[in-house]
Amino acid sequence: MNTKITELLGIKYPIIQGGMAWISEHKLAAAVSDAGGAGLIAGGNAPAEVIEREIAAAKALTDKPFGLNIMLMSPNADDLAQLVIDEKLAFVTTGAGSPGKYIEAWKSAGVKVLPVVPGVTLAKRMVRAGADAVIAEGCEAGGHIGENTTMCLVPQVADAVDVPVVAAGGIADGRGLAAAFMLGAVGVQIGTRFLAAQECQISQTYKDVVIKAKDTDSVVTGRIATTHPVRGAKTKFSRAILELEKCGCSSDEFEEKTAGALKKAVDGNVDEGSFMCGLIAGMVNEVKPAADIIDEIIRTAGGLLK
Amino acid sequence: MNTKITELLGIKYPIIQGGMAWISEHKLAAAVSDAGGAGLIAGGNAPAEVIEREIAAAKALTDKPFGLNIMLMSPNADDLAQLVIDEKLAFVTTGAGSPGKYIEAWKSAGVKVLPVVPGVTLAKRMVRAGADAVIAEGCEAGGHIGENTTMCLVPQVADAVDVPVVAAGGIADGRGLAAAFMLGAVGVQIGTRFLAAQECQISQTYKDVVIKAKDTDSVVTGRIATTHPVRGAKTKFSRAILELEKCGCSSDEFEEKTAGALKKAVDGNVDEGSFMCGLIAGMVNEVKPAADIIDEIIRTAGGLLK
Repeated sequence: MNTKITELLGIKYPIIQGGMAWISEHKLAAAVSDAGGAGLIAGGNAPAEVIEREIAAAKALTDKPFGLNIMLMSPNADDLAQLVIDEKLAFVTTGAGSPGKYIEAWKSAGVKVLPVVPGVTLAKRMVRAGADAVIAEGCEAGGHIGENTTMCLVPQVADAVDVPVVAAGGIADGRGLAAAFMLGAVGVQIGTRFLAAQECQISQTYKDVVIKAKDTDSVVTGRIATTHPVRGAKTKFSRAILELEKCGCSSDEFEEKTAGALKKAVDGNVDEGSFMCGLIAGMVNEVKPAADIIDEIIRTAGGLLK
Repeated sequence: MNTKITELLGIKYPIIQGGMAWISEHKLAAAVSDAGGAGLIAGGNAPAEVIEREIAAAKALTDKPFGLNIMLMSPNADDLAQLVIDEKLAFVTTGAGSPGKYIEAWKSAGVKVLPVVPGVTLAKRMVRAGADAVIAEGCEAGGHIGENTTMCLVPQVADAVDVPVVAAGGIADGRGLAAAFMLGAVGVQIGTRFLAAQECQISQTYKDVVIKAKDTDSVVTGRIATTHPVRGAKTKFSRAILELEKCGCSSDEFEEKTAGALKKAVDGNVDEGSFMCGLIAGMVNEVKPAADIIDEIIRTAGGLLK
């Protein structure tokens, strides 16, 4: 299943693992890369030293290429951007803004650059700035989201840019990969399905939330009180936050109630955790090794595309 | 392009036209059916006499099968349900609830029944009640919407029921049709693309709003003040309504401000009209005859699926 994205990244299968803060660490990234996908370590808000250790640990587990996701709003973004170069990582994905100021340095160092974009305008801007590919992410994705959906966004981005387009949001099986190809993508980014990978180091509680979620068990908070909506599983906590917003809480109050909530979920705190995951969690029903997840996706998609 | 849905409805192409209140009238329905799709007249809140005339007018324009969409919250739903039988229509689609109480009579009369469903639970319930197929509609659709997306909803509904699944929401070209097939659907329902059909009798102003819309020019109102979210084009009016909601307006105030707004849009009132349309309006750039729209979709999808 060779596409422009497998060529660009030097990987076997057109599957990029999502860069999920607090979640995408070395064990998951190495497992995905080892299985032929593009594994990613998430920088999140972590200091460079922490991520340096993560990268070293991943290198000890696999000799396949992997990358780093940089959340551009992080106070450590500059340090992480340099770390990508120092560590000679194969590629970098970016979220929450434009990585324009880093692109030249990355490209000089041979790092492939794949910004996550929520709309056509940013996609075009990223390509003008030198991005090697763009990841068009629909609002079915977990965590911070835009307002477009994968079905609508991917073909419009594909029409607008002349670099490879990766589809993200709402994809967890081979049907999703095959659909993404039809929409004009040459690969997919998958986050939520890998939450239920055996190698993913989140708490069993978090995995259980994802596995038990049905098609309607998804909530977007932050649409009312802030300008940064976030998707996660429907829990007592997330519903309470949504109610608080509907009652007109301030953005400060919202931030105060939700600060640190993702880390709490990773650690298994049901009452105060924000269990970020995509809308497609409803279709994720089983914990498996990352290699089995990837094999299954590729086999199903291959069958459909024949 | 024969599928279970073309067989079920006796149509040439697996494309059902959306039942858009105030919009889907005889000329559009007849044009879509004549071109090989499944045309639909929308009952909306109209009295049965009005719809009876619409049906007569459509029958005068085409001898191909067409159907009626019944909005179940309409005060005239009972009358329209009977009209479907009296007029020996080929099929009926339903929105805004469960048509369970009508299904037996429709089936006895040979009318095929296709409820629009926003989630897996209602899909299963409809199939138990005797639905011949279900239309799984993602929140990228225009008008009243649920909270799931086409990409996530379609495969989950396809896994849950053993009747044909039609994908709706976010589909406006052959890429969307091909993607829907990959996700497990055997046909699509298309609304927004037909807003820009030559035969669609909305004002030129409305068509211009759809054609000029970019990927980000979509707004969902009613999520905060009501339990019935509605998607439409981003205009001064729809943004004002959203702001009103964010400031905590009551559902009564919301209803008062928006009552009749769709009809105003149909008539070309930019200032007070609610220009309901799907998120995929960003990809609709040209007015064409319905037959050309359908031909283009089928040709593109056919090429992709080869």
